[in-house]
Amino acid sequence: MPLNPDRFLEDLHQLRSFGASGIGKGVVRPAYTAVEIAARRWLASRMEEAGLKTHLDPVGNLFGLAGEKSLLIGSHSDSQPEGGWLDGALGVVAGLEIARAAKEDGGPAISVANFQDEEGRFGILTGSDVWTKKISLAEADLLTSTDGITLSAARAKMMGRSKEFLPHDMFSGFIEMHIEQGPGMDASGDKIGVVTDIVGIREIRVEILGRQNHAGTTPMHLRQDAFQAMADFNQRINQRFAELATPTTVWTLGHLEISPNASSVVPGVARFALQWRDGETERLERMGEVLRDVAARVAQDRNVEVNLGDIGGIEPAAMDPQLRKALCTAADEVAPGKWLELPSGALHDAANVARVMPAAMLFVPSIGGISHAFDEDTDEVDLVLGLEVLDRAARSI
Amino acid sequence: MPLNPDRFLEDLHQLRSFGASGIGKGVVRPAYTAVEIAARRWLASRMEEAGLKTHLDPVGNLFGLAGEKSLLIGSHSDSQPEGGWLDGALGVVAGLEIARAAKEDGGPAISVANFQDEEGRFGILTGSDVWTKKISLAEADLLTSTDGITLSAARAKMMGRSKEFLPHDMFSGFIEMHIEQGPGMDASGDKIGVVTDIVGIREIRVEILGRQNHAGTTPMHLRQDAFQAMADFNQRINQRFAELATPTTVWTLGHLEISPNASSVVPGVARFALQWRDGETERLERMGEVLRDVAARVAQDRNVEVNLGDIGGIEPAAMDPQLRKALCTAADEVAPGKWLELPSGALHDAANVARVMPAAMLFVPSIGGISHAFDEDTDEVDLVLGLEVLDRAARSI
Repeated sequence: MPLNPDRFLEDLHQLRSFGASGIGKGVVRPAYTAVEIAARRWLASRMEEAGLKTHLDPVGNLFGLAGEKSLLIGSHSDSQPEGGWLDGALGVVAGLEIARAAKEDGGPAISVANFQDEEGRFGILTGSDVWTKKISLAEADLLTSTDGITLSAARAKMMGRSKEFLPHDMFSGFIEMHIEQGPGMDASGDKIGVVTDIVGIREIRVEILGRQNHAGTTPMHLRQDAFQAMADFNQRINQRFAELATPTTVWTLGHLEISPNASSVVPGVARFALQWRDGETERLERMGEVLRDVAARVAQDRNVEVNLGDIGGIEPAAMDPQLRKALCTAADEVAPGKWLELPSGALHDAANVARVMPAAMLFVPSIGGISHAFDEDTDEVDLVLGLEVLDRAARSI
Repeated sequence: MPLNPDRFLEDLHQLRSFGASGIGKGVVRPAYTAVEIAARRWLASRMEEAGLKTHLDPVGNLFGLAGEKSLLIGSHSDSQPEGGWLDGALGVVAGLEIARAAKEDGGPAISVANFQDEEGRFGILTGSDVWTKKISLAEADLLTSTDGITLSAARAKMMGRSKEFLPHDMFSGFIEMHIEQGPGMDASGDKIGVVTDIVGIREIRVEILGRQNHAGTTPMHLRQDAFQAMADFNQRINQRFAELATPTTVWTLGHLEISPNASSVVPGVARFALQWRDGETERLERMGEVLRDVAARVAQDRNVEVNLGDIGGIEPAAMDPQLRKALCTAADEVAPGKWLELPSGALHDAANVARVMPAAMLFVPSIGGISHAFDEDTDEVDLVLGLEVLDRAARSI
């Protein structure tokens, strides 16, 4: 095997040293921070050593180019404010090793991608958003991080910027290897996951206006309690969404606030966000209609005002059938009986790249399903197994 | 009639000028603030003009003494951070007018009470808490306001302090006149409410520990969602408490927070306060038992940890039968067919005073049931009617 698993794991640990923090194998390396730029610079040097030509585009995406039309393999090296060592990093370092091995033994032309700000310090998947023209660089420049910095200022700090974005037709397709970030494969014992599609997301902000009042003197039947209306809304949504859901459909009420938030006062205002995810646009739309119906019923039954914001989101992205097939074949050869096909509930750069070229994804398990946390981890044997499947698939295309 | 309604209303408006703020007849006069102390000093001067001997005790309770064993009438003159002109003020000025009129025409000995910090800037009903020895002055001195001031420092700012607390046996009983603060009488058209008892309160803090996780990759059936567990807790409490409740029983979930409170994250922690009120200690206790049962069931069914804090609260206070009878008789004479007996869902100084002497309360309606808000108000005709009932009752005792 031309691959060098030890070198691959060594690079992964070396990359972790940029921003290593917290418990376990924790990493703090948010997009455009000094340590993140240093990590990207180090990755560029490793790409050069591997015989790849590096290219940094204006938004900070780093490419290691094979020098001819090639398959692109990669992910991102920025992290959540409290992240683990594999989220993104695994896909970039896997791409590096596969491209390096191919260069060394006369394999196929493989280029490496390292997208910037996948974790959305500024946008959604900022680097691939801009490269795939989902948003313009001018629009992106106006995006602001929660600490008040504009993307324009952040990217100005990056090393030796290139002048242009790479054309998409330099690449025949894109494959992203990633940790699952969920508990499914860890629980089932599967070692390789071939992604069928990346789910779409919808999110809405809801405001319920009731009547703030005294918690002692306002009889139960006369209350217009905004919290109770929210709880009712939540209960009805749980029932109605469950009727529409597939086993992989999810919905979450993860952000809420009530006002005045005092134990002796009947709440007058409740604000919350509801997010739902599914692989099919039609189902996402239908869930939005159900939500509007629930809102109208709660407003009527509870004598409150329910104000709905716009429904925002991202469309589902189907993975390319041919690339999927190559991954399935390789998985079946390398890990027979220990792989499966599954959708991705998390968002990835591959969802953007799928809009401009054939794209696919490969998962390896996450121990305990933990991610976006310092204690995120995957057995190194599983990391190497994923690397082998990806290498075999890349050589078969 | 010896009462002077114009003088009574004029004093009420004059008192409002201390801290008049906001819309309507709003007042900002929290306990121990400069404007509150000025208002108290002005009230002392009005008591002196009425021939009463003023006495300020160490915690800041102001008395206007008739000079012999007497009925005590009063309330408080401090306000909520955003209060109305009548909450508390009405009872003090009514006591002043009744004592003044009695002095002028040889009526019974009437003293006036103006308790400090009824609105609980520092404690619960701080001034009457200390006077009735529910807590000691030393304990009270350690209480801190939300803006970080100790009661010890706050009361040091008060004018010419007296050295001792008044003995309770100087008074034959206590009557407090107050606005209803709820919508009941405004809706029913009753003008006078004779309070049967002041409800007891129980409050508990609840913490639910689930498992924080990714809102995309965590399947619905594997979630340990702390918010959903809280919503389930709330729903079960609503059902179980409703089985025990009387028409005047109330319960409120008015304070809550979830963590990490992000729309893309399954909440791992939910913390909230639940408060319930009822006129019977036995029912309050039974509701506490039900709550513990619900907590255990939610923990089991939802696979979360439910941690309960201590159940704190205040016991119900029954009003004195003889004073109540005097008020009922007077109400029936002054406002036949337009009065009722009712419990008080709000807490008042009378609940404390009832522990050391016979105590009773008289309500007048609140327009729209609004209180603890700038737009709190009562028709002046109703204020004067209440004054007449109270005066008549005081003369009959």
